[in-house]
Amino acid sequence: MSKYALGLDFGTASVRALAVDCATGDEVTEAIQVYEHGVITQNLPGTNKPLPHDFALQHPQDYIESCTIVISKVLQHIQAREIIGIGVDFTACTILPIKKDGTPMMKIAKFRNNPHAWVKLWKHHAAQPEADKINQIAHERNESFLKYYSGIISSEWMLPKSWEILNKAPEIYEDTDIIIDGGDWLVYQMTGKFCRNACVAGYKGLWNAESGFPSKEFYQVLDPKLKDVDEKWLKNIFYPGQQVGGISESFAARTGLQEGTPVSAATIDAHSGVPGMGIYREGPISIIMGTSSCQMVLSKKLRFFKGYAGVVKDGIIPGFYGYESGQSAVGDIFAWFARDFLDRKNNPFQEISTKAALLKPGETGLTALDWMNGNRSILMNSNLTGLILGLTLDSRPEEVYRSLIESTAFGTRIILDSHTNAGIPVAELVVCGGLVHDPLILQIYADVTGLPFKVAASNQAVALGAAILGSVAAGQEKGGFASFEEAIKSMTKPPVKTYFPNKNAKIVYDQLFKIYKHSHDHFGRENADIMKRLKQIKNQIRGGNL
Amino acid sequence: MSKYALGLDFGTASVRALAVDCATGDEVTEAIQVYEHGVITQNLPGTNKPLPHDFALQHPQDYIESCTIVISKVLQHIQAREIIGIGVDFTACTILPIKKDGTPMMKIAKFRNNPHAWVKLWKHHAAQPEADKINQIAHERNESFLKYYSGIISSEWMLPKSWEILNKAPEIYEDTDIIIDGGDWLVYQMTGKFCRNACVAGYKGLWNAESGFPSKEFYQVLDPKLKDVDEKWLKNIFYPGQQVGGISESFAARTGLQEGTPVSAATIDAHSGVPGMGIYREGPISIIMGTSSCQMVLSKKLRFFKGYAGVVKDGIIPGFYGYESGQSAVGDIFAWFARDFLDRKNNPFQEISTKAALLKPGETGLTALDWMNGNRSILMNSNLTGLILGLTLDSRPEEVYRSLIESTAFGTRIILDSHTNAGIPVAELVVCGGLVHDPLILQIYADVTGLPFKVAASNQAVALGAAILGSVAAGQEKGGFASFEEAIKSMTKPPVKTYFPNKNAKIVYDQLFKIYKHSHDHFGRENADIMKRLKQIKNQIRGGNL
Repeated sequence: MSKYALGLDFGTASVRALAVDCATGDEVTEAIQVYEHGVITQNLPGTNKPLPHDFALQHPQDYIESCTIVISKVLQHIQAREIIGIGVDFTACTILPIKKDGTPMMKIAKFRNNPHAWVKLWKHHAAQPEADKINQIAHERNESFLKYYSGIISSEWMLPKSWEILNKAPEIYEDTDIIIDGGDWLVYQMTGKFCRNACVAGYKGLWNAESGFPSKEFYQVLDPKLKDVDEKWLKNIFYPGQQVGGISESFAARTGLQEGTPVSAATIDAHSGVPGMGIYREGPISIIMGTSSCQMVLSKKLRFFKGYAGVVKDGIIPGFYGYESGQSAVGDIFAWFARDFLDRKNNPFQEISTKAALLKPGETGLTALDWMNGNRSILMNSNLTGLILGLTLDSRPEEVYRSLIESTAFGTRIILDSHTNAGIPVAELVVCGGLVHDPLILQIYADVTGLPFKVAASNQAVALGAAILGSVAAGQEKGGFASFEEAIKSMTKPPVKTYFPNKNAKIVYDQLFKIYKHSHDHFGRENADIMKRLKQIKNQIRGGNL
Repeated sequence: MSKYALGLDFGTASVRALAVDCATGDEVTEAIQVYEHGVITQNLPGTNKPLPHDFALQHPQDYIESCTIVISKVLQHIQAREIIGIGVDFTACTILPIKKDGTPMMKIAKFRNNPHAWVKLWKHHAAQPEADKINQIAHERNESFLKYYSGIISSEWMLPKSWEILNKAPEIYEDTDIIIDGGDWLVYQMTGKFCRNACVAGYKGLWNAESGFPSKEFYQVLDPKLKDVDEKWLKNIFYPGQQVGGISESFAARTGLQEGTPVSAATIDAHSGVPGMGIYREGPISIIMGTSSCQMVLSKKLRFFKGYAGVVKDGIIPGFYGYESGQSAVGDIFAWFARDFLDRKNNPFQEISTKAALLKPGETGLTALDWMNGNRSILMNSNLTGLILGLTLDSRPEEVYRSLIESTAFGTRIILDSHTNAGIPVAELVVCGGLVHDPLILQIYADVTGLPFKVAASNQAVALGAAILGSVAAGQEKGGFASFEEAIKSMTKPPVKTYFPNKNAKIVYDQLFKIYKHSHDHFGRENADIMKRLKQIKNQIRGGNL
């Protein structure tokens, strides 16, 4: 009998199921299903009332319905008893208030039309005022958790979003038993067991293994009414690959899965890509490269420095500190320029990429700053904006396009350098995600960083990572694995391609990087108010206030 | 009998003739003729030898042939005896070596295929090494002429181009009797009289009314062989509107003009626009606004400051110091962006300009630096390049387009402010040139500067200015005028349209201007090496040297 692990990868728009042969790593079947209601930004289903700006909600039932469909599809190809373990990854910071029986607050009639009773997606940014206050007071009090996040708490995270419910819908807050992350809620739906996964608790929940959660005093200083907010949070931490329980009778009946099939604690989707890319060691930086980029580094050492969004012990793979960084726009920048500024009829990427590839490093005479969606790595400043420097009347669109690619590579190099300077050396890059099929981009990254850039074997490294979690949760006796190392060795394949750095290109890019660094420090550090001011003027004009 | 003045406007690509009624200012007839050989940048006519980079030559016979044609055309509509005076304007720094009978050196068989025997157009930039040396040594010696040019001698001017002939073609230099500006050579062709016009001598020839030409010692320090270079230059200075002589018998025979018709000393084309726009007073800044812009201010006061390319007593209109500044790219920037970056099929200007006009000041969230062709106003640095700041994933092409217009307006404001700060206040703008039909551009300039922006009545203000010179050269007794003031009052019409500044827009632009000024000073002054370095890398890569 074959032994498969099932990965369930809950993204922003859809869920994907991937069944992987534990012995060979073969991806035997997969299915994908988009959420019926998608991302809700205009108005709640069944109402006409427009949602405020910055709202991004989801319907919790969508997750259940969609994953039922993809599991059923997978079970058309393999048998339920062949599935030895299941892992779940979920977009981070996708948070919902529920009753202690798991019922989402939006299912309670009186709260149905209140957006604060719904799932708040990671990109719901309406809790910025709460985040600002948290940051201010945490710094005043010199809270010890700050150093795990380079000193910045995002509006996307658990505490700001919880506080937002209290501020905007105190009646819902009052009635809510648990405020839970989507991944943990799904695991509860599957197993009937509540737990908090270490990944989301660490990266987005202000928890760390050394000192636990923030103090009640801190919450009280924020707002006396917020004092017991932590009592609405799950606190029994489960690590990636740790078994939470087995598939419940009801979930088995709904999906066709076998009751009792082990389910791992959930993890964040990007972080799931690390095991999915075959990484369980120090040295590489793992990059999920798509519209934006997420970078993760595993290390045995804990070092506090500027340049990560979070560091969590055992948060990605037990046995390592996992450092996470991000670039808020990568593929989005290329698409913005190629689609919005150039001829829209043909394939804008194909043509401009071909032309850009004919240019030599340094030939554009341009450098750019890749902050078209702010900076969420070393500078952590959403008010920063993009810049293109060196334009002449001879500058061609393909030169601008290439300089934009180079700018994101320089942004990555800033992150790498921050790790290396802190004593956490990075020796190679490993990539998965939507941009892996673009050789120009990957070669530029290799040349800019001077490091080999390896393309992960799996096209679905994130879902594969979830499956690996499932195989570890199953454990050796059920045909799974005793450790991540064994699971990864068995279930992942070597990189399919390596881009090696060109020495001469590196020499040129070292010079351009100095210019990038100059602009980076000038507009990102010494004069960060310049770009902010431009944004403020724009917003004031649009709001009719100037 | 009607009394007409004839203006001959020698541009880069063509000559225009305009006959103007001295009593009414009516432009009764005009004709235009492009030069047969145009701008010669690839190879000399009749040879295959490629010209070096930075070369831009012309064929002197083209001027004669073309102006013969346009004069003949004009004489189909008016009678030669009705023309009471003739003025000539010419692109500045268009320089040729000749024998003392006026024969261009390129007409001498042995020099025919040597590019240094041909006309060097203003945009011939191959004398940059000579200009660099001149600047260095002039500053070491603290030469008094430097202050008339804000401390920078351009490679386009008479001395660098003369020295280039000596360096690159000493045999031609040796045989040359006179190195002459195109305008003065044309006046010689028309009258048989040699003179040097004060405009080109002052703005491009290191001459000033107070101390004359540089010392022989200076030339000798540059290069002992250059010691007597000034003996190859005309030194009898004639002012705009001063009569050099009458149309010669031979030129009359060739063209049909009446022998003895008074001809004014020549002037630079842009400078001719000042009387053509009806300006003969302190207060306005006169802007010729096309692919690039030229700005001129008349003042009774001599002030030395950074912000002009040259100040010349009586150089534009006798009785005033004329301050000249320039922006090296204006319309060129808009064309570069609209044509090269956007959909090329439709009319890119029309569509993007319409969209950009719907935006409010400050709504783009962008500011740009307008240095896509260097900076030739206050910073005088051709190594500077353009910058766009504030880009986000929401930035639209029309927002970038508008920010580029605004950047050139900010560039103009820098020039205005430099005058005002030096005690030469500017109270209004008056414009002629290719961009006067774009209301968006003119309104932005009014709003950015807070000054009314008036559109000159004539569509051919430069040629009209030349005609005015002709009417002054004719003098009162011949039916012309005793002064510029009288000529301008009679021959120019009030502005056809005034763009008044919007107070609220000015408030917003004042804020954006601070951001522009920050970038301007950072990249133009404190860190001017940044943009230069980018250019150097680009040039080294293209040259295969990196």
